[in-house]
Amino acid sequence: MTGDHIVQSYDEDLRHLTNLVLQMGGLVETQVAAATKAMTDRESDVARKIIAADAVIDDLEAEVEKQVIKLLALRQPMAIDLRGILGALRVAAELERMGDLAKNIAKRSIALAQTREIETVWAIPSMATMVMSMIKQVLDAYVENDLAKAAHVWNIDHEVDEAYNGLFRQLLTYMMEDPRNITACTHLLFAAKNLERIADHATNVAEIITFRQTGERLPGDRPKADTTAMFAGQVEPGGGAS
Amino acid sequence: MTGDHIVQSYDEDLRHLTNLVLQMGGLVETQVAAATKAMTDRESDVARKIIAADAVIDDLEAEVEKQVIKLLALRQPMAIDLRGILGALRVAAELERMGDLAKNIAKRSIALAQTREIETVWAIPSMATMVMSMIKQVLDAYVENDLAKAAHVWNIDHEVDEAYNGLFRQLLTYMMEDPRNITACTHLLFAAKNLERIADHATNVAEIITFRQTGERLPGDRPKADTTAMFAGQVEPGGGAS
Repeated sequence: MTGDHIVQSYDEDLRHLTNLVLQMGGLVETQVAAATKAMTDRESDVARKIIAADAVIDDLEAEVEKQVIKLLALRQPMAIDLRGILGALRVAAELERMGDLAKNIAKRSIALAQTREIETVWAIPSMATMVMSMIKQVLDAYVENDLAKAAHVWNIDHEVDEAYNGLFRQLLTYMMEDPRNITACTHLLFAAKNLERIADHATNVAEIITFRQTGERLPGDRPKADTTAMFAGQVEPGGGAS
Repeated sequence: MTGDHIVQSYDEDLRHLTNLVLQMGGLVETQVAAATKAMTDRESDVARKIIAADAVIDDLEAEVEKQVIKLLALRQPMAIDLRGILGALRVAAELERMGDLAKNIAKRSIALAQTREIETVWAIPSMATMVMSMIKQVLDAYVENDLAKAAHVWNIDHEVDEAYNGLFRQLLTYMMEDPRNITACTHLLFAAKNLERIADHATNVAEIITFRQTGERLPGDRPKADTTAMFAGQVEPGGGAS
């Protein structure tokens, strides 16, 4: 970047837009990893830094928006480019939410560090690993315009949902076994739900990539496998999860 | 509407865009009200209809997107209009999420109807009433371009947060008093959280309205009062909430 006064070419403007989005994506990955680690290591000071760092992601989203308005106003792009430019705006919005959810995991880790330790906390980094891999792949798909990779991310989301379902039942069991686990387990439930939602946002990005390229949405409903909303509780107090 | 072949004026195009957004908003209000009622009345058949009806909101969002691309491609609007057109796109995205959250409340109501009744279920419609009033006011602010009304919505969000905080502690107490309440209370926790998030999305719309008009974001951080993520559990098994 040699200065704002140099007239950039249209291609440079587009590249700058993509770079801003990728920068956001990289930060989101980092935040998810760090928030998860803060949770398992009970590191509240680290968590507070993660909470503060979310503002950088928000600022980048505002920057994407500015860049989009500039591109639309000055370049009057053709219909084919419009989908890409609006796509960047939508991907940035998805990444901003993912950042918020990572921030929320960091917040919960502070509360969790003050409660008794729950054995299943290990399930959180295991879910986070899956989620971070989805984020990484969908960002690759975004920059490489790789529809197969985007479709792959969309298709593996159910694995995160299944991990979440398992953890949900397990946490309910812990709560029933010992009421002193309830506060900690509630935070873990919401942290797991946040990870599951981050994965959902990654699949939204996959949908945006597909739409940008084809003008078509991915066919039908995404295979949703978070069934906990429907869970009517076969878990018995003191017993195992059914 | 006399047919797609009639050339519409730019103003008509803009009006059509606003109407689509308002149509979405009206449906979201209806869905929130219906999902809440399905939950308190334990009406699973109604809940299933609400779940199915969410597709209409999704279709309207796609329609907004199409209309925005059409406007940008054919009309090449000035910078001042761009913020309004992109604002419609962003408001539509917020409304789509609010619809998803209402759908999720409907899903939980089906599970909840199969669990034991929890006294605090009354707190859900009371929260929902506050949330629906925020939706209504922010849609008014959107169509009337009323910045004071938008700021009001932004400022009252903490009331929903406080209602959520109270309910959160109460539900934790119920869980500790009797483990058989745990499944039902977990669903109520998530339903309440969904309402709290719908209110957050309404404040996002307020921010978009402000940005559309002024080009500036609302100053600093919104007063966030959902403190449950930080709650480290003073609730004691069998005792009252502290």
